Amino acid sequence: MTNNRAFAELMAFQRQTEALAGVAGRLGWDQETMMPPGAAEQRGEEMAAMEGVMHARRTDPRIADWLAAADPADAAGQRAVALIARSYARTTKVPSDLAQELARVTSTAQGIWARARAEEKVADFLPTLGQVIALRRQEAECLAQGGDLYDALMDDYEPGATAEVMGAMFDRMRPRLVALRGAVLEKAPPAAIQGHFAKEAQLALSREVAGVYGYDFSRGRIDLAVHPFSSGGGNDSRITTRVVESDPFNCIYSTIHEVGHSSYELNIDQAYLMTPLGSGVSMGVHESQSRIYENQIGRGPGFTAHLYGLMAARFGDMGVGSADGFYRAINRVQPGFIRTEADEVHYNLHIMMRFDLERALVRGDLAVGDLEAAWNDRFAADFGVQVDRPAHGMLQDVHWSVGLFGYFPTYTLGNVYAGCLFQALNAAVPGVEAQLAAGDCSGAVGWLRENVQRHGGLRTPEATIAHACGFAPSEGPLLDYLEAKFGALYGL
Amino acid sequence: MTNNRAFAELMAFQRQTEALAGVAGRLGWDQETMMPPGAAEQRGEEMAAMEGVMHARRTDPRIADWLAAADPADAAGQRAVALIARSYARTTKVPSDLAQELARVTSTAQGIWARARAEEKVADFLPTLGQVIALRRQEAECLAQGGDLYDALMDDYEPGATAEVMGAMFDRMRPRLVALRGAVLEKAPPAAIQGHFAKEAQLALSREVAGVYGYDFSRGRIDLAVHPFSSGGGNDSRITTRVVESDPFNCIYSTIHEVGHSSYELNIDQAYLMTPLGSGVSMGVHESQSRIYENQIGRGPGFTAHLYGLMAARFGDMGVGSADGFYRAINRVQPGFIRTEADEVHYNLHIMMRFDLERALVRGDLAVGDLEAAWNDRFAADFGVQVDRPAHGMLQDVHWSVGLFGYFPTYTLGNVYAGCLFQALNAAVPGVEAQLAAGDCSGAVGWLRENVQRHGGLRTPEATIAHACGFAPSEGPLLDYLEAKFGALYGL
Repeated sequence: MTNNRAFAELMAFQRQTEALAGVAGRLGWDQETMMPPGAAEQRGEEMAAMEGVMHARRTDPRIADWLAAADPADAAGQRAVALIARSYARTTKVPSDLAQELARVTSTAQGIWARARAEEKVADFLPTLGQVIALRRQEAECLAQGGDLYDALMDDYEPGATAEVMGAMFDRMRPRLVALRGAVLEKAPPAAIQGHFAKEAQLALSREVAGVYGYDFSRGRIDLAVHPFSSGGGNDSRITTRVVESDPFNCIYSTIHEVGHSSYELNIDQAYLMTPLGSGVSMGVHESQSRIYENQIGRGPGFTAHLYGLMAARFGDMGVGSADGFYRAINRVQPGFIRTEADEVHYNLHIMMRFDLERALVRGDLAVGDLEAAWNDRFAADFGVQVDRPAHGMLQDVHWSVGLFGYFPTYTLGNVYAGCLFQALNAAVPGVEAQLAAGDCSGAVGWLRENVQRHGGLRTPEATIAHACGFAPSEGPLLDYLEAKFGALYGL
Repeated sequence: MTNNRAFAELMAFQRQTEALAGVAGRLGWDQETMMPPGAAEQRGEEMAAMEGVMHARRTDPRIADWLAAADPADAAGQRAVALIARSYARTTKVPSDLAQELARVTSTAQGIWARARAEEKVADFLPTLGQVIALRRQEAECLAQGGDLYDALMDDYEPGATAEVMGAMFDRMRPRLVALRGAVLEKAPPAAIQGHFAKEAQLALSREVAGVYGYDFSRGRIDLAVHPFSSGGGNDSRITTRVVESDPFNCIYSTIHEVGHSSYELNIDQAYLMTPLGSGVSMGVHESQSRIYENQIGRGPGFTAHLYGLMAARFGDMGVGSADGFYRAINRVQPGFIRTEADEVHYNLHIMMRFDLERALVRGDLAVGDLEAAWNDRFAADFGVQVDRPAHGMLQDVHWSVGLFGYFPTYTLGNVYAGCLFQALNAAVPGVEAQLAAGDCSGAVGWLRENVQRHGGLRTPEATIAHACGFAPSEGPLLDYLEAKFGALYGL
């Protein structure tokens, strides 16, 4: 077997695996958007059968042979081989029994969590949470082979990231965010928008806004779901959104966020389609795209001026009088219990808290029985408010119920990367705010497509950002941006 | 390995295969209803990958071992084993290369047929059609092992059916249908309905009508697609319909037809879920359900009286004055070129013609180059009209392009079975027309559910109908029904 032949066979095998992963992903989309409710149990069996097929492929021993013999000449080929090797090593290190048990427990845990949250009963969730943590620890032990357990888990979402590096960055960020938060909250908040925003009008507006951002409807679609998400890749990446009739920004900014994720997938070089390079390289880089679309671009003075025009045409002036009042309303800073509703100033403080708590849970330093108290104490210390009920506290996020330990820090990493990219974008595209104010996103999203998105998984996450920015990423640009933006808004 | 264990392992393996088949089916539904157009090529690879997975499972050599050792005690288990054995024998008799070539050619042939039809160019389709026929003949030779080629193909859609038996039945049916047709066409046709029937109103009405028929929306849904179809099974069987604004009966009766198919799937005993008994037993029995829902029930005097009320409330009286005029309008008999638009009197004459032509094609007695002339001559002889263009002639149906030779006769078989079932239903449920006139379908569909649908694949197709009717099925009841109905309508 020549090296070229091994590489070709490996890539052909991988291509089918990617195709099957696409099928499983489409099934997940259907489940959240279209599936009749009575089909849930049957769908569970269908998903499990697909999972069995995928697992068999991902642990196929021929992969080891192909990997040993493959020696592609070009960088893209070498990277593809490295990514397959990484995935193969992770999958084969975990015994099938453990992987199946994890899948079984987390699939029921989500329902148990949802009920516990609806009924505000922490105790109903704790036994399951304990089980999930124990299983994820076992998995991490298989993966870490003596190394840090949390790092082994995080590596699945953000290859190469470590808790030490992440924790040090958070330690540098916290004082500046706490100081900014304190200064802002001493000032009077700007007025919020007022009005009734009908569901169909919000949906039509969201589709229009997605179009302004260049979302390719010929390769995607937008539907309603309980939670906004993006799904799929290659030439089929779909978005969901939701509508709260009193709060149109929920729908609009959820949509823009998902357009960011989906555009990343859709804009990857077609040469990488159905290869390991054909999807977003990490959760952190993915989140950098959704966040920069949503925040740095979408909540900036330029784009909000355009959005004000679109909304005023549909809904009148909304009680804010001008584009400037509208910009201030959109960027109101308010303490709140819920991470997903947090403004740009508060958001990362939520993440840092979860990071510390979940590290302690995985290390075994914090028992699940003590989690609620630990959460509430920490929240009071960081946010200055007592948690009033579990759904506003440790039961608010789905992540831990489905075993996502090590995932939360990628949200802040995404914000940090978005800060770096926005600095580089402004240097590269002069007058980008004026373009955005005119409803022209092509300069901004074109730069991101060209410098980040089209490269897919070609480089490591950090190298992907460094390549785009021309400098090594750090938290500095994000903090500078936040202090400048909210300093100006609040007259600090 | 004890027999019980072999049976249990076989059924567990089969269950996963059924689950994966459900996934593939759902993907097909997505393709026709939701998929963004730019995803088509990628979807082709996804479908091919799923097909590869399914083929590997269906030819897994362990199945032969399990089949040899399995010896279940009960009838349902024995039937399940027989159905798996039948499928395994069919799949393993055809070389993989041939199966793949057939899949490849028929998948492109459909597009070639669609273009040829749109451009009315028979010659553009003939080379592909010749290829499809040659490949299907090769497949039939593998399956028939010396027997009749056409029978081997038909057996896939209607197990146990033979061209000889089917042809003899058609020969008995033809004179009575021709005589009925001739007598009816000598009379003046009743008035058609008039009006404009807005798309949304038609869709809302179709959903209401599906509800009247007991369609279970908690395990299904109705969407728009280019062609009406039903898809899926178990607890997830979905329907599509279409709207022609000038002809509301297109949407309503397409929907009712698909509700018949879908109800059959949804009403199968839950104990058979994801087993070989858990889906409709044959195309003929499937069509019997769609046809009796659509014709014997849906176009009868009882149901149309109820439908007249529903439509008059939405659209006014439609120029027909009364429920009786409405019933007459729905049952207008008119010659026409298109099978799918044919009335109950003409429909089976279309099928008989296709049956004879495709048998000659498969036998090699008719060359594809002579097909158009043969079609047009036969049409003139049977229908008394010259075909005016290929889209009204041999290019009208998709079936041959996708290799469906031996499928057409199951449509008439479905009508024949529907005739038998309607006779038995009337004997078993007195006053069923009065119930239908009151908008109560429960007597009719309840009887079908109990006597046909819930049994799924438990018995052979013919035994399924005989069990429900209490007599061996034949064409007599259908012909009696047609002569009585249209004799009364046209005063013969």
